[in-house]
Amino acid sequence: METVYITRRETFNAAHKLYRPDWSEEKNEEVFGKCSNKNWHGHNFVIYVTVKGVPNEDTGFVMNLKDLSALLNESVIEELDHKNLNLDVPFMKDVMASTENLVILIWKRIEGSIREKGGELAKIKLVETENNYVEYYGGKEPF
Amino acid sequence: METVYITRRETFNAAHKLYRPDWSEEKNEEVFGKCSNKNWHGHNFVIYVTVKGVPNEDTGFVMNLKDLSALLNESVIEELDHKNLNLDVPFMKDVMASTENLVILIWKRIEGSIREKGGELAKIKLVETENNYVEYYGGKEPF
Amino acid sequence: METVYITRRETFNAAHKLYRPDWSEEKNEEVFGKCSNKNWHGHNFVIYVTVKGVPNEDTGFVMNLKDLSALLNESVIEELDHKNLNLDVPFMKDVMASTENLVILIWKRIEGSIREKGGELAKIKLVETENNYVEYYGGKEPF
Amino acid sequence: METVYITRRETFNAAHKLYRPDWSEEKNEEVFGKCSNKNWHGHNFVIYVTVKGVPNEDTGFVMNLKDLSALLNESVIEELDHKNLNLDVPFMKDVMASTENLVILIWKRIEGSIREKGGELAKIKLVETENNYVEYYGGKEPF
Amino acid sequence: METVYITRRETFNAAHKLYRPDWSEEKNEEVFGKCSNKNWHGHNFVIYVTVKGVPNEDTGFVMNLKDLSALLNESVIEELDHKNLNLDVPFMKDVMASTENLVILIWKRIEGSIREKGGELAKIKLVETENNYVEYYGGKEPF
Amino acid sequence: METVYITRRETFNAAHKLYRPDWSEEKNEEVFGKCSNKNWHGHNFVIYVTVKGVPNEDTGFVMNLKDLSALLNESVIEELDHKNLNLDVPFMKDVMASTENLVILIWKRIEGSIREKGGELAKIKLVETENNYVEYYGGKEPF
Repeated sequence: METVYITRRETFNAAHKLYRPDWSEEKNEEVFGKCSNKNWHGHNFVIYVTVKGVPNEDTGFVMNLKDLSALLNESVIEELDHKNLNLDVPFMKDVMASTENLVILIWKRIEGSIREKGGELAKIKLVETENNYVEYYGGKEPF
Repeated sequence: METVYITRRETFNAAHKLYRPDWSEEKNEEVFGKCSNKNWHGHNFVIYVTVKGVPNEDTGFVMNLKDLSALLNESVIEELDHKNLNLDVPFMKDVMASTENLVILIWKRIEGSIREKGGELAKIKLVETENNYVEYYGGKEPF
Repeated sequence: METVYITRRETFNAAHKLYRPDWSEEKNEEVFGKCSNKNWHGHNFVIYVTVKGVPNEDTGFVMNLKDLSALLNESVIEELDHKNLNLDVPFMKDVMASTENLVILIWKRIEGSIREKGGELAKIKLVETENNYVEYYGGKEPF
Repeated sequence: METVYITRRETFNAAHKLYRPDWSEEKNEEVFGKCSNKNWHGHNFVIYVTVKGVPNEDTGFVMNLKDLSALLNESVIEELDHKNLNLDVPFMKDVMASTENLVILIWKRIEGSIREKGGELAKIKLVETENNYVEYYGGKEPF
Repeated sequence: METVYITRRETFNAAHKLYRPDWSEEKNEEVFGKCSNKNWHGHNFVIYVTVKGVPNEDTGFVMNLKDLSALLNESVIEELDHKNLNLDVPFMKDVMASTENLVILIWKRIEGSIREKGGELAKIKLVETENNYVEYYGGKEPF
Repeated sequence: METVYITRRETFNAAHKLYRPDWSEEKNEEVFGKCSNKNWHGHNFVIYVTVKGVPNEDTGFVMNLKDLSALLNESVIEELDHKNLNLDVPFMKDVMASTENLVILIWKRIEGSIREKGGELAKIKLVETENNYVEYYGGKEPF
């Protein structure tokens, strides 16, 4: 009866570029600026995964953070850490490697596994630099 | 007519453990891992208390932050800072000392006093480590 | 169909005071405390501007962050950085220079320009010190 | 025989400007840029005071941090917090209100009192913004 | 010929108290304040270990950070994380559990192993709270 | 007569890998681990550049931070931001792209220009992730 939101933070370091081969150099540069550098650039990404639920009476936990962390490491961090988001990540194939697209696809990867563990995925925040981040609520619009 | 949310941050350092005496050592270890260490461990907790309201015409304040800080120090920080959450805190008696339970019980302690000061408690965020925190909206589910 | 929230962070350093000339010294001191110091004080403000939308198919962007940053620098940072909020900022004229009022007036300044660029302003968070900040959702109350 | 360095962090919020009345507007603008704004600007300053010494056998302390904090609050924070560095601070009279000058003058104010408490002031770090800070070792040049 | 300093950061969460059984309650309270709470309190400690050396020609490394991290986890984090510094840590036996003493004893534990790996321990910084930390250079006094 | 150290912070986001083509896959993997991923990874680097000197009597400045920042942007950030450290940076040609080597080469690039502006380069700190950074004093060994 008392819904609480718990959040786990993980990190990964990856390379990417924002570049459309079907566009001219000029258009890529105009739209994506420095992010279109052909030889890639990279970031220390920080991801915050929020799960909602009612604390379990025995444990006081919405979900065991050890389980949540293990699940995230297996499904997300292993796939993205020290990788190239455009070349090395099967679930990003044929998708612009923007932070917006990445956050949506991470949601799809983990939503089910979190439900199996008894939690409900509520939000993912993905920080690309100290000056920009994205947040995704599974398509919901809380505000 | 213009609801704004203001947040005050306070800190406290406390010991706790996650351990059920009605469970075997093995089960405690399995569920709570290192957090079940009998001799306690501890954290630098950070609490963010959010109050909503319409700014007062004379002061431009939703609520005077001096009052909010004083209230939090008296009702929360005094009770928890440099304490053992399992042993020293009357309102945590007979409750698993999880961050989830703690945030719910802090809400109950301060909700009324904030209302008396003319504010409306909207959210509490309680940070346990750089890798995990909980958020509570008084049972509401904004997302 | 997949609404994502993107946030851009900018900073500005400004002086202000909280002081009503129609009140006695004593009342100013009682209500505003140290913030009423006649000769001003100041802060390193941090502003987080959140825009919601569906990522564009070609770019993967809710809104180009270069455009958002340029717009914020022109409409907000230029007006506030290294300024006195009480004396130098036309849109703060005759308004108490509280963080609450400031966040509402910043919203009004940028909401339209962001819409023209195809985005929808969803939230502004304005951090005054490490211990207090305000959040504004355009008057909406998500929780 | 085992010298350890301990550091205490305190904060203060102040207004200042960098401006020479004996210079033209143009020269002030050219040298000090936005920092010369006549109506002031301000910062959330953070100060780190480092004291060196051998831990006391009974307490394990180089110096009691409660004493160090009390001393800093009385001699530094009371003088600077919510003040105007150019107008309100006697020990900054007739001195350019640069962070460099401020750190030297803070050193002079507290060096003696720390020695009386049995400590030896070793370093002061004064942070003005997230992008710049100064450090002072009492004139020593460790590197 | 080109000495560079590399630093690895690790974290541990522990309980402790500052309390001398050979002193009266009053004296413990007077000297150690809230830190003398009998039932313990705790912190999220952060440790920064700095090793100096000339980068290896083949690897560009002063020391392999994987090795340094493994060594720190085995010798320090395993011993301290989710532990009680007064009760659970053999190398802190009969020592006041102050941060100063802890940093000296950590140095003694790891100095030799780092040398065996080809590095030279140069500094340890141990952060107890956001407001205080200690630094130790093996007894050296660089300033 | 009163030497003060001033520090400017800048950031850049870059891709790199640690990989020796003259070594086998196995040896690269063994020594460099995940950092040897052929398709690159990346980081949000943060650089802190420290200049020492006596504050100027007229300005109170060791060195004008506007000049220091402009110099760093021109000589360092322009060269490294949104670049591939192995492929795009002439001064890193034929050098292992370790943080140690990078900090030494940045020093060589800016030491002279800072001297021309009347400052003396004293230290560079280069942060690669929240868990590791390097520091370089031009070969000096202050501790």
